[in-house]
Amino acid sequence: MTPAAPAYRRLSVEERRSQLLEAALSLFAHRVPEDVSLDDVAEAAGVSRPLVYRYFPGGKQQLYEAALRSAAEELHHCFDEPHDGPLLPRLARALDRYLTFVGRHDAGFSALLQGGSVVETSRTTAIVDGVRRAAAEHIYSHLGVPDPGPRLRMTVRMWITAVEAASLIWLDEDEQPPADELRDWLVDQFVAVLTVTAARDAQTAELVRGALAAET
Amino acid sequence: MTPAAPAYRRLSVEERRSQLLEAALSLFAHRVPEDVSLDDVAEAAGVSRPLVYRYFPGGKQQLYEAALRSAAEELHHCFDEPHDGPLLPRLARALDRYLTFVGRHDAGFSALLQGGSVVETSRTTAIVDGVRRAAAEHIYSHLGVPDPGPRLRMTVRMWITAVEAASLIWLDEDEQPPADELRDWLVDQFVAVLTVTAARDAQTAELVRGALAAET
Repeated sequence: MTPAAPAYRRLSVEERRSQLLEAALSLFAHRVPEDVSLDDVAEAAGVSRPLVYRYFPGGKQQLYEAALRSAAEELHHCFDEPHDGPLLPRLARALDRYLTFVGRHDAGFSALLQGGSVVETSRTTAIVDGVRRAAAEHIYSHLGVPDPGPRLRMTVRMWITAVEAASLIWLDEDEQPPADELRDWLVDQFVAVLTVTAARDAQTAELVRGALAAET
Repeated sequence: MTPAAPAYRRLSVEERRSQLLEAALSLFAHRVPEDVSLDDVAEAAGVSRPLVYRYFPGGKQQLYEAALRSAAEELHHCFDEPHDGPLLPRLARALDRYLTFVGRHDAGFSALLQGGSVVETSRTTAIVDGVRRAAAEHIYSHLGVPDPGPRLRMTVRMWITAVEAASLIWLDEDEQPPADELRDWLVDQFVAVLTVTAARDAQTAELVRGALAAET
């Protein structure tokens, strides 16, 4: 029997690219970028190293950035939540999806956010900042505030950063406390910091009196 | 009249090193690292470029790291606060000093914490993490908790990260709100997030009932 032709001959350019990207993403998810080589990616995808270079001539840096962009898109989907029903359960559901994402990209998520990695550039920083901005926009939109003032914006951005910090510590501590407990804790913190801001900002005060007061 | 010998001949090795470092620090404080050259440092210190290289053979990267280490030491001093009197005013005083530091190192502070800079390495990240750890240790010590549990530690670290985020936004928005207002806001947030944690952690509950309840 003649051996089957290598599987990669049968894939289209787009399919091949996706397959390499998926292999890269799963490697970058669980190892620090320093510990992922192009050979690892080639092996995980079952192809040759030159083939990886043909699709990603920029080598590891380009693969890393492409994988990061694909992870960022996935994160954007985590934030997709219908504008229906009470606000805090919506936030809780988005956090559930976010924490699942974090758990599935542990080492990569930590390496990315902790900085100092060899693959970190102003482009990777911009991708991460884009995710943060999207998260903030989703929150304003669910709060029904098309034009958030500086105090409300600062509060939301501080909370998002605190959530990132919590995620990193959570990974560091073997996902303790359990995800649902962490999620409720983060929702409660969101309400608490908004309440603190309400004491010094009319827009936030109205939010807390209105939308949030009904739920807490 | 013969011209005076160049001033740099009169400085000791240690003095010269300090002078170069000070020049570097003041440049790195107000510009992103990309916009500081060794020529700028030489010019600011009134010396030749080869002299800068003699003291810092690693060039800009070495100068940057040395300047960062010196800034980190300065930050450590911001946290020095006697263990006397009510707790929240102690926190407020440390925050005052911290915000003054942030205002005096605006561009450098932002570039450092926003990541993606060419001079960022695992060493610079370690220096920044050291400052964060020191800040947390100071807080535990003022709270009188020699052995903070995971919930309390996570809360304190989240708050420290949120303070960093607030500082970056504050610089971005031309130091608005005024420093004293931001300081009080951050202190109130500290109490609020501890109170949220108190609902799920006995150690934090005791802190909030005890030390903090008397003051708020």
